[in-house]
Amino acid sequence: MNNFETRLRKYAELTIRMGLNLQPGQHLLIWRNNLDTAPMVRAVAEAAYKAGAHWVNVFWHDEEVILSRYKYAPRDSFDEFPQWLADGMLAHAKGGGAFMAVVGDNPDLLRGQDEDLMARSQKARSAAFKPVLEYVSSDRVNWLVVGAATPAWAQKVFPELSHADALEALWEALFTFCRVDAPDPNLAWQKHIHELTARAQHMNKKRYAALRFRGPGTDLTVGLPDKHLWKGAGANTSSGIAFIPNMPTEEIFTMPHRERTEGVVKASMPLSYQGALIEDFSLEFEAGRVTSVSAQNGETVLRKLVESDDGAARLGEVALVPHSSPIAQMGRLFYSTLYDENAASHIALGRAYPGTLEGGNAMSRDELRAAGANNSIIHVDFMIGSAAMDVDGILPNGSVEAVMREGEWVFKVHS
Amino acid sequence: MNNFETRLRKYAELTIRMGLNLQPGQHLLIWRNNLDTAPMVRAVAEAAYKAGAHWVNVFWHDEEVILSRYKYAPRDSFDEFPQWLADGMLAHAKGGGAFMAVVGDNPDLLRGQDEDLMARSQKARSAAFKPVLEYVSSDRVNWLVVGAATPAWAQKVFPELSHADALEALWEALFTFCRVDAPDPNLAWQKHIHELTARAQHMNKKRYAALRFRGPGTDLTVGLPDKHLWKGAGANTSSGIAFIPNMPTEEIFTMPHRERTEGVVKASMPLSYQGALIEDFSLEFEAGRVTSVSAQNGETVLRKLVESDDGAARLGEVALVPHSSPIAQMGRLFYSTLYDENAASHIALGRAYPGTLEGGNAMSRDELRAAGANNSIIHVDFMIGSAAMDVDGILPNGSVEAVMREGEWVFKVHS
Repeated sequence: MNNFETRLRKYAELTIRMGLNLQPGQHLLIWRNNLDTAPMVRAVAEAAYKAGAHWVNVFWHDEEVILSRYKYAPRDSFDEFPQWLADGMLAHAKGGGAFMAVVGDNPDLLRGQDEDLMARSQKARSAAFKPVLEYVSSDRVNWLVVGAATPAWAQKVFPELSHADALEALWEALFTFCRVDAPDPNLAWQKHIHELTARAQHMNKKRYAALRFRGPGTDLTVGLPDKHLWKGAGANTSSGIAFIPNMPTEEIFTMPHRERTEGVVKASMPLSYQGALIEDFSLEFEAGRVTSVSAQNGETVLRKLVESDDGAARLGEVALVPHSSPIAQMGRLFYSTLYDENAASHIALGRAYPGTLEGGNAMSRDELRAAGANNSIIHVDFMIGSAAMDVDGILPNGSVEAVMREGEWVFKVHS
Repeated sequence: MNNFETRLRKYAELTIRMGLNLQPGQHLLIWRNNLDTAPMVRAVAEAAYKAGAHWVNVFWHDEEVILSRYKYAPRDSFDEFPQWLADGMLAHAKGGGAFMAVVGDNPDLLRGQDEDLMARSQKARSAAFKPVLEYVSSDRVNWLVVGAATPAWAQKVFPELSHADALEALWEALFTFCRVDAPDPNLAWQKHIHELTARAQHMNKKRYAALRFRGPGTDLTVGLPDKHLWKGAGANTSSGIAFIPNMPTEEIFTMPHRERTEGVVKASMPLSYQGALIEDFSLEFEAGRVTSVSAQNGETVLRKLVESDDGAARLGEVALVPHSSPIAQMGRLFYSTLYDENAASHIALGRAYPGTLEGGNAMSRDELRAAGANNSIIHVDFMIGSAAMDVDGILPNGSVEAVMREGEWVFKVHS
């Protein structure tokens, strides 16, 4: 336990100093943390004060109170959200305050609850938080998403273990993914960020017209917009604070062209969506659009997902992650986007990130669409990478270069 | 444990329906609750939703995060408080939202921390919260303070018990004080409130000029202003919601005249003040002012307390509680004002409540002073009642009537 405390403290310090890069005198707002994340939140608050935080505010929530709301609250209340709470967060952001999300959600919390209520609640929340989320996601302040192991989450990831062993195993995994036990974790992270940045730069120079994925059950060509931009890892605020918005982070990612994906792809891991598990599933694409879906389990859910709106049947993201990623090596589903999207190369149905197009953040919706960006109310990642996946880059002149072989990068970068 | 859950649920329902009297469609903000109060907060949230709450917001805080702040935060940050948080609470109040404080503080949390920081922090917090506290304490919305047993608090109250036994004993005490196990708890509370209200009315009709307390080490005459008002138990919002601001509540209380207390008083229980314990102490008064203090332990702290400002050496409250009060019967110090002030007749050094004077809420500071009300930055209650205490009422013509004998009420009221 003493050893655990030491590693937890190292993890917390790493997130504050290397990830968030909290500046002396900054205010910090910690949120999205349920009560079970207390050990991590306490360690983070201490690390933040030691790093010179002026004030650390924590917005705790309790999953049982949320569940009570779904069970007993008036149905018409789900279209509302207390605006003063979102306004307060915006005031914090405009005052230059940093944000940190500590996630440790029970993946099954809302299993079996009314899907309509979930959707309406999400919509009301999104509307209230829109100003602050736009402010934060455009990197006007430094922000970070990190994980904390919690009993319910651990049991879901390690169902074969006892409660205590599952919790220990999940912490062990989180520490490993964040390089806590490296001889010099800061140096390890600097090298890692440097490498991801160099890989994104390499891919940006290449200007591939498409990527081709080949593996068991997969032969998929993902066309890329002319002005696609590969991104990865590090970010900078407008005031010049360098930070890492996600820990862990193993991916470089860009935007597919909404009309240029062709072929078939078989998921390499199950997809957890709104409490349902979609397993052993394949999608076929023609001219960017899903034309057929099949799944051993959850095919109906998958079909509904793809039919959410027009853009839900097209791709919004393609990301490359080597199979040597520490998360991939675990071979487990984490039921948490922060981890699962860093475990394997993946694609996402739905909305594209404007920032993965040159000048995209300043484009109108019509301009984005004309440039090839997809739009949708959904953005759902699923994993396609594995040790058996080859990836080629297809140049505008049709010539082909190897990008990944058997799940690993082919090209070297200086790091 | 099943039995515990049942009683906890009854307790929570009692606080929501009988105490707060939450109205269907009201928003509820729960605060002052640390993470260890989770079982009670969860039960309260469920009871609130079942009673028709539109939304239950919970502002959790963690005592370890607070302690980190005292240990590591920049010293100049203690003069600040995030105004947007207090503004949000005011917005909630102005929208007609109810407030509930669930208290379960560790009495020793800040023991040994810098007293100057505590005072500055309290001052900054009070300044930020002033508008919302004025709104709430003038009963413009319904509000309630209740307790929840927590491990650290339980250990302090029952130091001779194991952790588990102490927690169980404290819950047992809290349930008992709130009449949770009465055959019909609602009816028991209605009778109790009715009796306290009748006692206050009886005392208001009497128009005593003074009360005289006599017991071991005590012979104290507390003069009362001409327009003093006895209060107790029930309250009403301006919109007509009847509620009980404190559960438990056993006292009726009024305002002493700031210049008319004479004699000597010996405390019947120790006084816990800012982490220090003042034991076996006596105070002598002349013309309303403390002229000498003595204590077996903590005499310096007591002396400093009385010297806080001019009004700190004068009385601001006198309250009568019979020794048959269930809290008094425990014979323990609870290190929590909510409980301790309902255990025995008590007096308070410092600020008087304007509402305990006829028309006092509308008076200026000068008018209050002229009417006999004391003012101070402090208001510190300490217990003087016991089974050996007699209380007399002295009428303006000098005649004397028995009010309490051996700690119990002499007069009967219809209930």
